[in-house]
Amino acid sequence: MNFSGSHILSIDQFDRGDVETIFNVADKMAPFAKRDSITKVLDGAILGSMFFEASTRTRISFGSAFNLLGGSVRETTGFEHSAIAKGESLYDTARVLSGYSDVIVMRHPENGSVLEFSKASRVPVLNGGDGTNEHPSQALLDLYTIKNELAFRGRNIDRLRIAMVGDLKFGRTVHSLCKLLALFKDIRVVLVSPEELKMPRELVEYLKEQGQEVIESDALEESISNVDIVYSTRIQEERFKSQEEADIYRGRFRLNQTIYTANCEPNTVIMHPLPRDSREHARELDDDLNDNPNLAIFRQTDNGVLVRMALFALVLDVEHEINSSARDTIWYTAGRSL
Amino acid sequence: MNFSGSHILSIDQFDRGDVETIFNVADKMAPFAKRDSITKVLDGAILGSMFFEASTRTRISFGSAFNLLGGSVRETTGFEHSAIAKGESLYDTARVLSGYSDVIVMRHPENGSVLEFSKASRVPVLNGGDGTNEHPSQALLDLYTIKNELAFRGRNIDRLRIAMVGDLKFGRTVHSLCKLLALFKDIRVVLVSPEELKMPRELVEYLKEQGQEVIESDALEESISNVDIVYSTRIQEERFKSQEEADIYRGRFRLNQTIYTANCEPNTVIMHPLPRDSREHARELDDDLNDNPNLAIFRQTDNGVLVRMALFALVLDVEHEINSSARDTIWYTAGRSL
Amino acid sequence: MNFSGSHILSIDQFDRGDVETIFNVADKMAPFAKRDSITKVLDGAILGSMFFEASTRTRISFGSAFNLLGGSVRETTGFEHSAIAKGESLYDTARVLSGYSDVIVMRHPENGSVLEFSKASRVPVLNGGDGTNEHPSQALLDLYTIKNELAFRGRNIDRLRIAMVGDLKFGRTVHSLCKLLALFKDIRVVLVSPEELKMPRELVEYLKEQGQEVIESDALEESISNVDIVYSTRIQEERFKSQEEADIYRGRFRLNQTIYTANCEPNTVIMHPLPRDSREHARELDDDLNDNPNLAIFRQTDNGVLVRMALFALVLDVEHEINSSARDTIWYTAGRSL
Repeated sequence: MNFSGSHILSIDQFDRGDVETIFNVADKMAPFAKRDSITKVLDGAILGSMFFEASTRTRISFGSAFNLLGGSVRETTGFEHSAIAKGESLYDTARVLSGYSDVIVMRHPENGSVLEFSKASRVPVLNGGDGTNEHPSQALLDLYTIKNELAFRGRNIDRLRIAMVGDLKFGRTVHSLCKLLALFKDIRVVLVSPEELKMPRELVEYLKEQGQEVIESDALEESISNVDIVYSTRIQEERFKSQEEADIYRGRFRLNQTIYTANCEPNTVIMHPLPRDSREHARELDDDLNDNPNLAIFRQTDNGVLVRMALFALVLDVEHEINSSARDTIWYTAGRSL
Repeated sequence: MNFSGSHILSIDQFDRGDVETIFNVADKMAPFAKRDSITKVLDGAILGSMFFEASTRTRISFGSAFNLLGGSVRETTGFEHSAIAKGESLYDTARVLSGYSDVIVMRHPENGSVLEFSKASRVPVLNGGDGTNEHPSQALLDLYTIKNELAFRGRNIDRLRIAMVGDLKFGRTVHSLCKLLALFKDIRVVLVSPEELKMPRELVEYLKEQGQEVIESDALEESISNVDIVYSTRIQEERFKSQEEADIYRGRFRLNQTIYTANCEPNTVIMHPLPRDSREHARELDDDLNDNPNLAIFRQTDNGVLVRMALFALVLDVEHEINSSARDTIWYTAGRSL
Repeated sequence: MNFSGSHILSIDQFDRGDVETIFNVADKMAPFAKRDSITKVLDGAILGSMFFEASTRTRISFGSAFNLLGGSVRETTGFEHSAIAKGESLYDTARVLSGYSDVIVMRHPENGSVLEFSKASRVPVLNGGDGTNEHPSQALLDLYTIKNELAFRGRNIDRLRIAMVGDLKFGRTVHSLCKLLALFKDIRVVLVSPEELKMPRELVEYLKEQGQEVIESDALEESISNVDIVYSTRIQEERFKSQEEADIYRGRFRLNQTIYTANCEPNTVIMHPLPRDSREHARELDDDLNDNPNLAIFRQTDNGVLVRMALFALVLDVEHEINSSARDTIWYTAGRSL
């Protein structure tokens, strides 16, 4: 695809080459995200951060990514947006708000709302999550993390073996990750979930159609013994009819250091879209894994900044200008490498 | 008036020369608002954006205007401001908050509150709307749009013929616009409303005293046939005693493409303060006008940024320095011209 | 202490030399806070302003301080932060959020939460108030104001005579101020409160152990007659069991111009942590003092910006680089000196 001026609404927009383009630009962002140097490539540009639904970390991650490129951020959080209550169409809202900024990231509780908004917007729109539908930057940061972790082990994404564990029915991130993985070669996906929370059939069929191997299981320990990545997920309790129903599944699949040591290959990477549920009855990823160097969950969120910087740079067409305004940072940054 | 260091609280502060000064500075802002170039004239300055009442677009418009001049924005939205609940006077609030910024824009639900705040502030205060009282930047952007639309047709504001349609009793914007128009020559104002929602008598009298022609009517089609501008307004339903009472008037005067074609002169400009009510039973301006090139409603909100940039530049006395730090933009901006 | 990369969590971290270091750096910030010049020393750096509890002025003061150093601010206000509701630990929250910024200021309703957060943070954390526990930048700005007011009178902090008046039981600021004053020499502290709202015993003992003189009283007028500073406080009514109980004490000790003139030495400084309660039945500091040049309450909040700039400069280790990027301001700033 041609990124310049485009909206980023769905991972369905991308082919393998597009994903690789995004990742190459994300790699170029590392010195800035790590504060080795700063760039002012988007000095003077404004991000409209329109979060009609709360999501602190996604909002701050996008905002920080834009700041790291030198731009400013104007923001809305929650439904302060009373114009909609007065009967304004999303078309009008988009026409107006897109006059105030150079690019918009939007989150909204309703499926399809960001697409509708983007049709009337005069600037590129990035989907920051529209209901249960799409959250493309999350899917990209997950795959980018997989790429980086494997690269550290001398591998690439092709021939990946990954176990996805937990609530595979309601977990938006695993759905998107499956779609992205389908673009690569010889992927083996092990799906570990309770019978009632299995991955949707159409996604399983899609993976198989693309030539990938899919194994389904409801047993954790055997499923994680021959994989490169264990991708654990939280029970999406807010999606169940009752707390009681969610509690049936919560805590069903728990990974801790003992189980990891007993079952996983050395260097098996542990991922999770976060937040992880650290309450006693849940703990899908135990805190005793925190010192395990293969725990990549905070590298995932760090990578989110790189991926979002890359998306901004691509849609605003400055990916080749990043280094022209670069200079060294002068303040304390040593703690970041911890 | 001398703008440097002044508060902007009410359109009553302005004479015709002041309005023309603001518009001349707004014209100079166009290259920056259109992203042809960027300026950093207010680099290092801080806007205190104090919105004690929600108004997303006014808040974002002011904030973006300040960013476009190179400044930073610190913001409050809603009555998070618990100090007032603890018995703090507006005097104290103003003394404190004005120590944090170089200029303040304030919105507040109570009439007169911004004036009271400004008396204790040590930095210029811009009224972003105080209850039903004043919202001067909205009035200025409306008139600035009229100026621009007429200029495009080889005209100026003098001898303007304008129809104001809808809720003329409660609509703050039409009241302010009448006051500003009174500063010009040979204006004909056609006021179209239900009998119960007529323009306040004192404003009608004021217009006449200033030598303007005023025609009142409750018939839409004949009233819009010989005017340069149709300024449509929403029924301010939140101001009625009941939803039922508001519903009596909602949908009474609807302008759509068919009525426009049948009645209006070619190139009659269509304006609206927004939000327009696009729900079935309202639709004072139909969506089928969206492709009409004379629909100026989104040019109005775009012009809001120019006017607010001009106000900041004037009260902070940098209107002659704007271009000294200007340079070309380097990112994608092509979609903005749509 | 070594400030570079450190968390600022409690005034217990500081010895006298540390306090003097902070104040020396704060002094260097004055030209920037007064807008004589601007600095961009933190251009490219990001402050994560994490206010899990509302506090407009503390939040804006920290944010403005960071902007004045050239940095950008990303912000959370209130408990939008739904991840915690989904069972996320403060450890995870800290690991994630600290990846987005270069320094964090955090406010949280629970005692000890900022300390816990800081342990997992990869960037320096400044405590912006954790419940009833600590609010170190407020204590520092109070003492910095005392230093400045005394310096103006040719004095230093040693041999200070100060009266603290009002709710000394629940007032967090007076507790912290006592701890800081204990670091200096020959301090006389006169504590004026109702019997039921006396300063906690352990603080009184601590002051005495450090060689300071402590006098307790429940009579205002005689207590303020031989002091350099009167530090008045609001009845912390939200800390009482009922409004009725708070009302017993509210209005008990009122300072106004008449009482000041009759009892105080000339040039006795009047301080208050703000907000002051200006309602009829409270008025611990009457509005008729507003024109008294010794009323230092707004110099306190102004000084808060200097102290917070100093803390940022110290923990990010740029205190020696401040002037390297300095240049003159060009916009209107005359009103600030009022």
